[in-house]
Amino acid sequence: MTGAPPRGLDERLRDTRAKLKNDVDAWIATSGSTGGGAHLVPLSFLWDGTAFLVSTPRTSVTARNLLADGRVRLSLGPTRDVVIVDRIAEPVDPASDTGDAFATRTGFDPRRLAEPYQYFQIRPRRIQAWREENELRGRDLMRDSRWLG
Amino acid sequence: MTGAPPRGLDERLRDTRAKLKNDVDAWIATSGSTGGGAHLVPLSFLWDGTAFLVSTPRTSVTARNLLADGRVRLSLGPTRDVVIVDRIAEPVDPASDTGDAFATRTGFDPRRLAEPYQYFQIRPRRIQAWREENELRGRDLMRDSRWLG
Repeated sequence: MTGAPPRGLDERLRDTRAKLKNDVDAWIATSGSTGGGAHLVPLSFLWDGTAFLVSTPRTSVTARNLLADGRVRLSLGPTRDVVIVDRIAEPVDPASDTGDAFATRTGFDPRRLAEPYQYFQIRPRRIQAWREENELRGRDLMRDSRWLG
Repeated sequence: MTGAPPRGLDERLRDTRAKLKNDVDAWIATSGSTGGGAHLVPLSFLWDGTAFLVSTPRTSVTARNLLADGRVRLSLGPTRDVVIVDRIAEPVDPASDTGDAFATRTGFDPRRLAEPYQYFQIRPRRIQAWREENELRGRDLMRDSRWLG
């Protein structure tokens, strides 16, 4: 515990938008319809202001889970400065300039790889952010796809 | 990408054991039997050399998921220095010295809270560790509950 006072809504919104813009990796938790339990991997993302774009091999557990059940929970770390997002992931075939932006942002271009990759777009429905216990109250920053405040 | 050369098995084992001993928080991914998709939260843990001990309110999504389906995937961050653990979580009622060690380690003592908490013990079956793409090969450090090397 750092003992810092809890941030207000405006500060959390500012910090969270900066994190969405500047962070490169997120933790992606998925579960398939196959009863295989939860899966969790770090993936690089592009945030375009309203949605995440991620890409993973089409044969990976994450891609197979998302194609079977698009519900995804995504977090930006570290664990004491958390942003958590809930939403449905949709498989997409991005336009070429979006594909370029993704490659620039993440440092890899799935279109150039021999292994088939699948892109997914994730539009947040709910976003929460907190650092320590004293920020659990007031952690909702977005509900039903609308930013609060 | 940092461009660092991939670590060998011995170095990864050393780094990973240090992380298990020194880190305080882990990301815990679970999925219930209710078809609610994957859940993901950061939880503080105590590592005793062979198992993790975590604790969460009995009414939380994570506790309800684990009581219904104990399969858990747990990661220690950051996303470019990953340790991932797969295992079954078992509800436990720790001995009083273990409860004390947990409270000292994590900074909170669920036994003193009005809200009912549930402890879970997680003995790893598989542990993987990697930093960048070039470490994906050789990422298995434990299989079938046995450390490699």
